[in-house]
Amino acid sequence: MIPVDLRLYGIIDPDRTAGRDPVELVRQVVAGGATLIQYRDKRADGRRQVELARALKEALRKTGVPLVINDRVDIALAAGADGVHLGQDDMHPTDARSLLGVNAIIGLTIKTPEQADALVRMPVDYGCIGGVFSTVSKHNPSAPIGLDGLAEAAARAKAAAGAPVGAIAGIDASNAEAVIAAGADGIAVISALFMAPHPRAEAQRLRNVVDRSLASRSIRS
Amino acid sequence: MIPVDLRLYGIIDPDRTAGRDPVELVRQVVAGGATLIQYRDKRADGRRQVELARALKEALRKTGVPLVINDRVDIALAAGADGVHLGQDDMHPTDARSLLGVNAIIGLTIKTPEQADALVRMPVDYGCIGGVFSTVSKHNPSAPIGLDGLAEAAARAKAAAGAPVGAIAGIDASNAEAVIAAGADGIAVISALFMAPHPRAEAQRLRNVVDRSLASRSIRS
Repeated sequence: MIPVDLRLYGIIDPDRTAGRDPVELVRQVVAGGATLIQYRDKRADGRRQVELARALKEALRKTGVPLVINDRVDIALAAGADGVHLGQDDMHPTDARSLLGVNAIIGLTIKTPEQADALVRMPVDYGCIGGVFSTVSKHNPSAPIGLDGLAEAAARAKAAAGAPVGAIAGIDASNAEAVIAAGADGIAVISALFMAPHPRAEAQRLRNVVDRSLASRSIRS
Repeated sequence: MIPVDLRLYGIIDPDRTAGRDPVELVRQVVAGGATLIQYRDKRADGRRQVELARALKEALRKTGVPLVINDRVDIALAAGADGVHLGQDDMHPTDARSLLGVNAIIGLTIKTPEQADALVRMPVDYGCIGGVFSTVSKHNPSAPIGLDGLAEAAARAKAAAGAPVGAIAGIDASNAEAVIAAGADGIAVISALFMAPHPRAEAQRLRNVVDRSLASRSIRS
């Protein structure tokens, strides 16, 4: 199992591009330092999702940056993506692992400490702590967990999974340092990258914040 | 390739059961003579779909009646279903065939004569002519094609696919005979079976109409 690099995890949602081409945006944020890309699409039909996933995979081919697909294991398989990102209500990670094989990347959203603990029984390569701050990119019925909630969930998830743990929801350059200090191994971002006027420059800025924060966390510990 | 028996094709949608258990309803309609079952679910999350698909497959295990899943190839694979039913905007049948293998059943909805002709290039085991009459089970933006439209589409689909062709939308005991006479090899039904007060008896009645109509069509030809 190759460790997944979560430092700057860009989630491209065709509904959150400010009208721009998703493939071109992904090229830009990867040039700026994104380390992992997720394609999330809650609206397009399957055929369109396969097409766009293939175009994204092609754009990433020589970058070394993996592509994971939100929810749909079949889209990942058809497009030759590197894996999937699953929510708690999506297909169980054990089933996804059976379909995708040992070399695929499987990530799981974690929203509670109990879900973090449950990672011990799951074949996942990374966790992503959700609902950290409030966000405009997704409707979250629960209250944000904040930095304290993140710290607890991240510690428990890392202990249970033995795998890196990212954080998502409302993360941008203003709070990324605190998120890393709280224990996240990287930040997952949608709007902060893909709605930004200059996605490549924003990716560079965020990646710099993350790298600096990881370095000072490693000095402290 | 084993020919698919489309004579009475029951489509179970958990939103169209009049509050009853989908698995029990499927048992009843199969006992009444359904020859193929499709699980269609546009609302449940992936994990729930896998669970229900597995329960349906288990209920069908000793009946010889295959189970296909609407749209989601990954759900079909995870649940060990026999194949998928695809719409024109779902994953392309060629991609689905690559993922499911040669022994899976792949069906495709056909709504225009052009889509019927295109079957010649597609690895599908059956076609299903959609939008025959008006229906309460699904929102159809196009006008119903009626019996004449069905006759043309069915003839072209059978010629192109070399496979059986069913019909769907608004079909019940009152019009099933005309649908078979127009060239369909069977009827696909949702409400007429699964909203019926007595699904098993209704399945018997519909199956009798279809069998009788197929027999008289075969005598005429």
